[in-house]
Amino acid sequence: MMDIHALETPSVLIDLDRMERNIQRMQEHCDGLGIKFRPHTKTHKIPDIARMQLEAGAVGIACQKVSEAEIFAAEGINDIQLPYNIVGPQKTARLADLALYNRVAVSADHPDVIAGLSEAAKANGLVLRVLVDLVTDIERTGAPVDQVVGLAEKIDRDEHLHFAGLLVYPSNLVMRPVIQEALDRFDRAGFGVETVSGGGSGAALHAHEVPELTELRVGTYVFNDWSSVGKGWVSLDDCAMTVLATVVSRPAETRAILDSGSKTLAADRFQDGHGHILEYPDARIYQLNEEHAYVDLSLCDARPRIGERVQVVPVHTCVVTNLHDQIYGVRGETVEVIWPVAARGKVW
Amino acid sequence: MMDIHALETPSVLIDLDRMERNIQRMQEHCDGLGIKFRPHTKTHKIPDIARMQLEAGAVGIACQKVSEAEIFAAEGINDIQLPYNIVGPQKTARLADLALYNRVAVSADHPDVIAGLSEAAKANGLVLRVLVDLVTDIERTGAPVDQVVGLAEKIDRDEHLHFAGLLVYPSNLVMRPVIQEALDRFDRAGFGVETVSGGGSGAALHAHEVPELTELRVGTYVFNDWSSVGKGWVSLDDCAMTVLATVVSRPAETRAILDSGSKTLAADRFQDGHGHILEYPDARIYQLNEEHAYVDLSLCDARPRIGERVQVVPVHTCVVTNLHDQIYGVRGETVEVIWPVAARGKVW
Repeated sequence: MMDIHALETPSVLIDLDRMERNIQRMQEHCDGLGIKFRPHTKTHKIPDIARMQLEAGAVGIACQKVSEAEIFAAEGINDIQLPYNIVGPQKTARLADLALYNRVAVSADHPDVIAGLSEAAKANGLVLRVLVDLVTDIERTGAPVDQVVGLAEKIDRDEHLHFAGLLVYPSNLVMRPVIQEALDRFDRAGFGVETVSGGGSGAALHAHEVPELTELRVGTYVFNDWSSVGKGWVSLDDCAMTVLATVVSRPAETRAILDSGSKTLAADRFQDGHGHILEYPDARIYQLNEEHAYVDLSLCDARPRIGERVQVVPVHTCVVTNLHDQIYGVRGETVEVIWPVAARGKVW
Repeated sequence: MMDIHALETPSVLIDLDRMERNIQRMQEHCDGLGIKFRPHTKTHKIPDIARMQLEAGAVGIACQKVSEAEIFAAEGINDIQLPYNIVGPQKTARLADLALYNRVAVSADHPDVIAGLSEAAKANGLVLRVLVDLVTDIERTGAPVDQVVGLAEKIDRDEHLHFAGLLVYPSNLVMRPVIQEALDRFDRAGFGVETVSGGGSGAALHAHEVPELTELRVGTYVFNDWSSVGKGWVSLDDCAMTVLATVVSRPAETRAILDSGSKTLAADRFQDGHGHILEYPDARIYQLNEEHAYVDLSLCDARPRIGERVQVVPVHTCVVTNLHDQIYGVRGETVEVIWPVAARGKVW
């Protein structure tokens, strides 16, 4: 069994006790609410971890890209939702291939997207399950509430498509009245809505206040990160991911440079820093280059020497995973498992 | 021969004509100044492109990590400089192994770093070439000017190390007087300085005003990017890298969503946007999520439809390369070569 001190730096560590507790806790949260839980795999991109989430009680997974879904499906994980407009004949064909042997659902926010899905489903002689994506206060994708019934009708009229419900991201409190209006409209038009799929880490905490939801998609909870802590969603003890880094330079009394730059920690910033150093909680990672993290030590009583190793809680865990070929599952100081990040870099 | 229209999106395209011109031009710039050119491979991470740079006249390459250098050395590229403190017994041992069969130089800014290099060189029975890293106005790594002679002495006294010169990043005009002071100090202490290695894309343009330099390290020039254009270093026609993306949603009259989020374009921002859309120069990519680019179309007369493909000039080319398993070398609309990004994700 390998010891974490034997690892090269920078390396991404996952505290298995914490991860297992996070998986259990979110499942219990959804079980308590009587709704289905569907973890978003973008955070870990690792089939073994998806299996742990399913064993804990999740109904299936969410993936953002067809190429990610293909990785999980090949590992026998068969209930996959893609909360994304899948556009273009190559991608819709791959999606329809995936749906031949797996339980697949996809979202759509426009008649053109629905038409593309229909063509691919028809070519494979199957029925594709399609959720209507409702626009939210973050104004990303999604149809306005007065168009959702029209989209459902287009799906419903198509013999190769099945209207599978409503998709909302994030399903926060601000959105509740809009979700209610959408459901009213569906009801008046005679549509049953089998699934109301909500998502978002912040929204998950308030899911009991949006009882219209039948299913929740959350990703970050499995590892958590410094921004989750900063937003008050979790405590530092809930953060399962750290980046093991080395102090490679101490060019000034109050400055250290770590070997974990934006190529390792990702460029995300939360408030005034790019992560939290466990051993030096008063230190501040104030800037990143690709291979350098700049640390301000002016508030630290003790200060690290060159060669010292530290653990950094990153700002945004999902983007860190995507930068690494493998991550290490550790318990205490023992490396229990080395996971290839199987769905890393799958942009298609 | 593959056509770019057959590619999935998002995909990273390299305009080969432009890249070849960029390689030629920077080499001619250095030749004209009578200094050596050493391209930094962090921008492309691809041995074939490094070979093109060497064939044009470069003396060797620079890599930021030992694991990157190992990739290039395995491909027969043997003159490698690491402008980085290599710290810890595992990494210095790998560096010394690399130096057994390659011409390797490394930088150091502290006696502890030098001691580690010495131990590894001794273990392999070789002499490691070490440049002294001078701190600059960006205050990253580097020793203050009054310590550079002391470090050179420590290197020079060590039978397993060779003082190989001075390293400066960036070697801009502000630094010229400091470089001169360092050289004066070396001179007074009786040290010959065989190499004064400068770096930085902006600094490269002013290299004629820093005649103390004997060698230049630049990376970005090979592809260039939207921030290079914005800073006035190059024109849009010099940008060889674009990201081919699809419009996957048109949720509002003035908003489009592309399938190239921060997992594709990287999170970097320059001024008010995350890149430049060639087909819609008045559009603005105002926000990125991992799989979504939010585009403001309010200033555009023509506006894209769902399914349309566009080419985005990214803000920072080096970080884009690191996110992709392969990139496509294109001439016109023909894909001439598919390059695996061999040194992608090498964080060690």
